[in-house]
Amino acid sequence: MLEKVSLRFRGSCMMLMQRSGDSVEFLGSCFLVRSSGYLLTTARAVATDAELLAVPPETDDRYPSLTRNEVDPIPVEIVAVDREHDIALLKLQPDLKIQMPADIIGEPDETPRGAALMSIGIPFGYYRVHTVLAPGSVLAGRARTANGSRLLIFDRRVQYGDSGGPLVRVSDGSVIGIVGGLFDPEHFGGVQAPEGVHVHPNFSYAISIEYASELMTAQGI
Amino acid sequence: MLEKVSLRFRGSCMMLMQRSGDSVEFLGSCFLVRSSGYLLTTARAVATDAELLAVPPETDDRYPSLTRNEVDPIPVEIVAVDREHDIALLKLQPDLKIQMPADIIGEPDETPRGAALMSIGIPFGYYRVHTVLAPGSVLAGRARTANGSRLLIFDRRVQYGDSGGPLVRVSDGSVIGIVGGLFDPEHFGGVQAPEGVHVHPNFSYAISIEYASELMTAQGI
Amino acid sequence: MLEKVSLRFRGSCMMLMQRSGDSVEFLGSCFLVRSSGYLLTTARAVATDAELLAVPPETDDRYPSLTRNEVDPIPVEIVAVDREHDIALLKLQPDLKIQMPADIIGEPDETPRGAALMSIGIPFGYYRVHTVLAPGSVLAGRARTANGSRLLIFDRRVQYGDSGGPLVRVSDGSVIGIVGGLFDPEHFGGVQAPEGVHVHPNFSYAISIEYASELMTAQGI
Repeated sequence: MLEKVSLRFRGSCMMLMQRSGDSVEFLGSCFLVRSSGYLLTTARAVATDAELLAVPPETDDRYPSLTRNEVDPIPVEIVAVDREHDIALLKLQPDLKIQMPADIIGEPDETPRGAALMSIGIPFGYYRVHTVLAPGSVLAGRARTANGSRLLIFDRRVQYGDSGGPLVRVSDGSVIGIVGGLFDPEHFGGVQAPEGVHVHPNFSYAISIEYASELMTAQGI
Repeated sequence: MLEKVSLRFRGSCMMLMQRSGDSVEFLGSCFLVRSSGYLLTTARAVATDAELLAVPPETDDRYPSLTRNEVDPIPVEIVAVDREHDIALLKLQPDLKIQMPADIIGEPDETPRGAALMSIGIPFGYYRVHTVLAPGSVLAGRARTANGSRLLIFDRRVQYGDSGGPLVRVSDGSVIGIVGGLFDPEHFGGVQAPEGVHVHPNFSYAISIEYASELMTAQGI
Repeated sequence: MLEKVSLRFRGSCMMLMQRSGDSVEFLGSCFLVRSSGYLLTTARAVATDAELLAVPPETDDRYPSLTRNEVDPIPVEIVAVDREHDIALLKLQPDLKIQMPADIIGEPDETPRGAALMSIGIPFGYYRVHTVLAPGSVLAGRARTANGSRLLIFDRRVQYGDSGGPLVRVSDGSVIGIVGGLFDPEHFGGVQAPEGVHVHPNFSYAISIEYASELMTAQGI
């Protein structure tokens, strides 16, 4: 099942980068949501004036070099941003026709606690190396932030660079959220650990995909 | 399977708190072991003179607010404590009739290495937010401490607040241990890592449920 | 499935140690690859002039004492070392006849991304306590280092002491790699996290088992 879902998302999760002089800088992950080239990511990842680029992963299964530095970026533009809920809708500039399922959007509210999940992202920005799956996780809970944003909490430690990737329900391969980051207990008002207790949270949160659906509907896509 | 076991324990894992003036302080996790309102937790969690309270989780599947602070605590009293093995038996004070299986106690000695486990607890004390599952773990080993306590070791990083929750065997949904905490290699006499090697253990231990069974038998329950 | 694979490797993963005066020092993990007593580990683990020893695990399922210190070591000698790819082939000195499958070597190149894996090792060198499984992981990617070594990347945090153990494909119980260590993004040329972002990688790498096969073929075994 995981292998199948993994193949379904093969190639659809990309690195998001910005042009910086002659080189490019890694910003996080993003993923294809429509065959016409629309991408989703977080709003915070695109809070820049620089030119945005997406870099698709290698889709063959060889051993790419860890020391290779060239990338093959595709220009993207910002279509719409929902800063309140931290969602951004982008579009690949070349008019590509990509093979992918018509609708990968799932139903976060209908996903029960304990449902198997996997998140996909590009930890540490390893181009050509891996679009990594983090399976073995379940929906641990839901929460609403101070500004009303709906969050999905899952019991898996995401890494730097994973932010902006999809949170996928394994049973049907649908996307139920956009990965935000680690679920830091202090930031979200949890109980503070006593002095001397070291906290390394291994929970992460995703922004409910509903906000992305609303953003796309508002754009007529 | 995980969804099913998750539902079985829905609502039975609670926050343990103590009254502190006008407010309440989080102590850890505890869980229902009998429909008559008996709870298990660790002895160290109840080493206090303050009034003890249990706070059951929300059992609906909505998005509770992260900023909501009121809790709805139920008074509990200590029935028996086994300090040597770090087990405490509590009882909810109101005479509640709770729907739950007659016996959820499993057989730790019959559980083979490699058996799928999940632990349940309330990391960081997030009230109304999640009673989090940590599945994807297996029984990694057993150990006996210097004072003879039987420990079950599982390959999952529990968090601050998870201590006192149940360690559940996935195949039959039975409780085989009470979560203790992280398996700190230095504390338990493992080999010390060489200078410069940073250790973040991702193994945890639970106290064998046998001691809880003995405590309950001694109380005639 | 995990329980079955766990049994298959029960007893075959050992502690590698070196004699140091009257005591022994833990070096890492190693594992049986042939019933005639051949073992595999990393080259770096055996970069010592001291006498090498292997300590097989307890194979019964009791609760061994955490405070017991005596070990029952078996002398081993180095048969061949491939420093470039960090592989070493050892042999138990007593002429033991061990029951194990004729060939446990798998095919790393034929293992798809997303395939379920488990790694086996002895974290923190807990003798008699556990030969720990780390299941719930998948093949996350492949990479080639600057010197051409083929690495398998899996989404699981290995511990100090796990290095030298086998990386096993769950579906057929075959070994596809030898566990190297944590996949440190800076060491391998990944994007550096911004100032203030704390990175605790939860990815690990294994050296492709192909190099071990070549080493064994060269030795006529």
